[in-house]
Amino acid sequence: MSISRHYEREFVRTFFTSPAAVEGEDDSAKMIQSAAQLRGMQAPDVWVPDNEDATAPSMRDEGVQNIVDVISEYGSDFPGEIHPRVVWHRESPTTRYQGFQQMLEVADPANGAVENLDGFVIPEVGDIDDWKKADEFITIIENEHGLEEGSLSMSVIVESGEAELALGDLREEMGKPSNNLERLFLLVDGQVDYTKAMRAMTPTGELPPWPELRHNTSRGASAAELIAVDGPYDDIRDVEGYHKRMTENRAKGMTGIWSLTPGQVVEANTAPLPPKTGSWLLEVGDREVELDEEDGQQVYSGGDISLETIGDGQYLLEVKGDQQELDEDELREELLNMTAYVPSMDDIVDSMEEFEAAKEAGKGAIAMTRSTTLVIDDIEVNLSNDRMWDEATYQAAQTPVTLFQDVYEHRPDQHEELEEMYGADVVERATSVGN
Amino acid sequence: MSISRHYEREFVRTFFTSPAAVEGEDDSAKMIQSAAQLRGMQAPDVWVPDNEDATAPSMRDEGVQNIVDVISEYGSDFPGEIHPRVVWHRESPTTRYQGFQQMLEVADPANGAVENLDGFVIPEVGDIDDWKKADEFITIIENEHGLEEGSLSMSVIVESGEAELALGDLREEMGKPSNNLERLFLLVDGQVDYTKAMRAMTPTGELPPWPELRHNTSRGASAAELIAVDGPYDDIRDVEGYHKRMTENRAKGMTGIWSLTPGQVVEANTAPLPPKTGSWLLEVGDREVELDEEDGQQVYSGGDISLETIGDGQYLLEVKGDQQELDEDELREELLNMTAYVPSMDDIVDSMEEFEAAKEAGKGAIAMTRSTTLVIDDIEVNLSNDRMWDEATYQAAQTPVTLFQDVYEHRPDQHEELEEMYGADVVERATSVGN
Amino acid sequence: MSISRHYEREFVRTFFTSPAAVEGEDDSAKMIQSAAQLRGMQAPDVWVPDNEDATAPSMRDEGVQNIVDVISEYGSDFPGEIHPRVVWHRESPTTRYQGFQQMLEVADPANGAVENLDGFVIPEVGDIDDWKKADEFITIIENEHGLEEGSLSMSVIVESGEAELALGDLREEMGKPSNNLERLFLLVDGQVDYTKAMRAMTPTGELPPWPELRHNTSRGASAAELIAVDGPYDDIRDVEGYHKRMTENRAKGMTGIWSLTPGQVVEANTAPLPPKTGSWLLEVGDREVELDEEDGQQVYSGGDISLETIGDGQYLLEVKGDQQELDEDELREELLNMTAYVPSMDDIVDSMEEFEAAKEAGKGAIAMTRSTTLVIDDIEVNLSNDRMWDEATYQAAQTPVTLFQDVYEHRPDQHEELEEMYGADVVERATSVGN
Repeated sequence: MSISRHYEREFVRTFFTSPAAVEGEDDSAKMIQSAAQLRGMQAPDVWVPDNEDATAPSMRDEGVQNIVDVISEYGSDFPGEIHPRVVWHRESPTTRYQGFQQMLEVADPANGAVENLDGFVIPEVGDIDDWKKADEFITIIENEHGLEEGSLSMSVIVESGEAELALGDLREEMGKPSNNLERLFLLVDGQVDYTKAMRAMTPTGELPPWPELRHNTSRGASAAELIAVDGPYDDIRDVEGYHKRMTENRAKGMTGIWSLTPGQVVEANTAPLPPKTGSWLLEVGDREVELDEEDGQQVYSGGDISLETIGDGQYLLEVKGDQQELDEDELREELLNMTAYVPSMDDIVDSMEEFEAAKEAGKGAIAMTRSTTLVIDDIEVNLSNDRMWDEATYQAAQTPVTLFQDVYEHRPDQHEELEEMYGADVVERATSVGN
Repeated sequence: MSISRHYEREFVRTFFTSPAAVEGEDDSAKMIQSAAQLRGMQAPDVWVPDNEDATAPSMRDEGVQNIVDVISEYGSDFPGEIHPRVVWHRESPTTRYQGFQQMLEVADPANGAVENLDGFVIPEVGDIDDWKKADEFITIIENEHGLEEGSLSMSVIVESGEAELALGDLREEMGKPSNNLERLFLLVDGQVDYTKAMRAMTPTGELPPWPELRHNTSRGASAAELIAVDGPYDDIRDVEGYHKRMTENRAKGMTGIWSLTPGQVVEANTAPLPPKTGSWLLEVGDREVELDEEDGQQVYSGGDISLETIGDGQYLLEVKGDQQELDEDELREELLNMTAYVPSMDDIVDSMEEFEAAKEAGKGAIAMTRSTTLVIDDIEVNLSNDRMWDEATYQAAQTPVTLFQDVYEHRPDQHEELEEMYGADVVERATSVGN
Repeated sequence: MSISRHYEREFVRTFFTSPAAVEGEDDSAKMIQSAAQLRGMQAPDVWVPDNEDATAPSMRDEGVQNIVDVISEYGSDFPGEIHPRVVWHRESPTTRYQGFQQMLEVADPANGAVENLDGFVIPEVGDIDDWKKADEFITIIENEHGLEEGSLSMSVIVESGEAELALGDLREEMGKPSNNLERLFLLVDGQVDYTKAMRAMTPTGELPPWPELRHNTSRGASAAELIAVDGPYDDIRDVEGYHKRMTENRAKGMTGIWSLTPGQVVEANTAPLPPKTGSWLLEVGDREVELDEEDGQQVYSGGDISLETIGDGQYLLEVKGDQQELDEDELREELLNMTAYVPSMDDIVDSMEEFEAAKEAGKGAIAMTRSTTLVIDDIEVNLSNDRMWDEATYQAAQTPVTLFQDVYEHRPDQHEELEEMYGADVVERATSVGN
């Protein structure tokens, strides 16, 4: 690939912000001190001491000092990357100059934090020329402090229409000799301020879903070899909603998400990894229902589907009130269309190994078979599904495994939990397959 | 902000078109005469005497004359802005030249309409160079007629893929010294002709929803500080559908919509304003059900949810056939996740005032609590929901209030109806909060 | 229109790929030999002998030879266009040079295939500069082989974020004198590799829906006067799913779709054509149910709606558990809102003829009435729906007819099947209306 990256990670699952200075506490650095000591699944891939929105304007000088102190003390042992967020605004030169001063101070080698500092997060950027202003400040900081040009990465929060448009320019702009935009790392959506900038409203005040923004961020990241991260999920108690959002995001190629608490970090570190055990889904109308496994059979126990025999090898299948009379083959075909299998990590590694062996033997495509017995109203139906795998299928299936390998390489502090989750054998095979 | 706008309004709720000349009537100007006399909620924010699609080609010379006459007679008293639509087509120089001639005539000071004319609507534009052709004609017209350069605004109807692409170029192009695109005002979607240009088809012939077009229009407007307006909603009798569409649009940041009748104008002028009274919603599957308030309690009376006690402080909750056994705390948590509150204007103003006071007292974030009693199958459950408000939440919540204030400032003819709707006290507080 | 096209078709319904060389068969050209002999509804509009993913890397030299042989032998009688796919990759100069060599050989007049060759399909393109590299190779090939410049068309497969972004540049780039991008023909989505490039994941491994990609492809095609084609639908047995996808695509202006088997070709050749007979739909919640016609009445027999009389001309209508008491007019209004009509080819032609006659008589808009009797729980309700048709409605309704006419003109081998489907009379009227 033609853009030379300044960082190693291919994936970032978690972007965890902590207030840099909290008012009214004995020690205003309390929050970032405790965040800096997180380890394992509770520790994010990217940690963001936040000197912008999470810290009151009057506390931001203290916030800079806290960031310097905490990174100096805890930074070398922190298992993820560290990217403080400073202030910035596309429409305010005052704020931009403050952001420059904050970065200049945090990165000053005399303060002792810079060697454990990976980069900065710039919020509220505007169009590409605004991104270049931040990039130029960082270049000047590197130069003033005798750091290698491009050694500090830059991540941005997309919170305006013009920043969303800039996502389409990155690939072209990053090559130009007049900037150092190759330092770009994360493209993060910031839906609260984006919603404000777009002047959008919902009846309940909850954030709109903004599917196009997430697509454009993910696409921009893909085209410029960067990493896309979704914005904060406010309703901290709604774990199911957070998971649903992450599943949606992964289908858009956006693997990372903001986390507001260590609990959310655990969820978001875990969610993109393939499950320990596979499961069968049944599609009923627009919903997907997970089936219960009982003695190796998949049992449907909901009320939306019923099945009965009506003599002569004929069946009556009713799905949400729609009835069909089917013979055994038709029934099997119908149910096969309604089911889907969620493979486990083990299954994925198996399939990849099988395809690799077939390729070695000169075959370009093989059929992978998946079988089960589905039980509805005590009637058992054996299902068997073939899926053709060719090189392209293989490579697409590889994404979760590559993610796993990337995690395994960069997060030794999570090895133990990963082995507990999958078993040592699966972890070992998963780290070596496909290489 | 860097782009100097030539108009004052920040929001346009309604874009109402009337045929400039109707065939077979005693007076072909009948429709625009009556439209010009609309007042209050029936009068649109932007009124568009339409000399394009709504007027037969053979009637368009008469249409120009009618527009001049009606604006001269009624324009100074009309409470909204006046922007006639002339003919234009990206692929026809003949049509473009006709459009130029129509504008030249309407804006001629000798005809007496120009002082009440706010701008022109240009349909069927193509890529940005085509927009510049229309802009240049208007510059020439201003010069010929001794009007100030940029004094006539220009709105466009997006009805082609190339115009949709141009939405991404506006911010950059509007700054260039070789054009006067700063005169741009509304970006309006025209889905009938857009559908034709995209050669899209639906089985019933109804228009596709085009969510990406609406997003791109809204984003283009946001990035270039313009105003986005959705296209016509054909099914005039379907008031519920019109409201659903507007709710969807506001979640995209598109506050304005086309209106085809004074009845639609009333709906579209009212819909974006916060409701008089708050209400509770219950999310059941993919649907949101509004609850009935009875004696201050929120009663669910649908058939999709049932609740019963099963002894020992345990409850059985069934939602669309899925059963859960829950203790009281789990039940509360589950129901809390399923409910949402739609705040009234009064609620929004209250919350803003409360946050302002907290900020004054040095707090950056406060919890807003919302409580109620939910009743399902005669079982009462007390719910209480906290939501954190910080500066960003405050500013996002402000959008409907800013809209209200904008309406209040520019539409004195609606003051009476607004006071009837909300009460004088709420109106007064809503006009002063946040300033 | 300003871009001079080098091809005649306006629509492409079907893009059918066949492996150029299959390993382990007596005759490795078997698949393309049989594909080349397809006729009528089984023959695609565009046939793609595939020397990329469907052919093993070790077989690709043989694949080139097979393509040359089969096109030479069968090409002149093949009823669709022939566009072989060669290898290409935006990130591999080796692969690009191989692609050049493959095209050079296939197009060599000495080999006898070029006179029946319509163009090439280039997969895995990157940004617009990468598209230009392929274009330049084709220009060189035309020059070397003494072919007219621009006579070979070029279609691309969009399988990366950067290629998706390039879709927005086409209109502007195609006019430049330094390239021959006017040779562009099809913009085809390739979701398997796109999903890989975007690093997207779904739990079951099925492809994400990528609605924005399809929109952007369709819009890019519309803006640059090209033709948009959706990617392969893997689940060959799921005919219903394939149809659902095509219906969705047509609502996006994407008429064409990839076909993997002659069975899929038949489905995809037929689906975009208007149906033989009209039908009524009833919208129940988010689902549309097709009604059963019995003796000219439309009968609802599902379980989600019930209707009963409750005396005094009052009715109780229950839709998914929500009850309403309505008088006869309200009932009619409510049901009217819930119904929609899918017009037949005959209906569309009728309406167009009616509107043409009205226009001839000087009317700009007429009401089209559609009536039926709806039967729910043995209660009959007469419904009558007016829809206003103006010039824009007429032109939008014309799309399926234009498609039909395009098919009729370019696919004489399908005339017989079309006449069987619609009857000779409807075919005749449909081929002449609107011209």
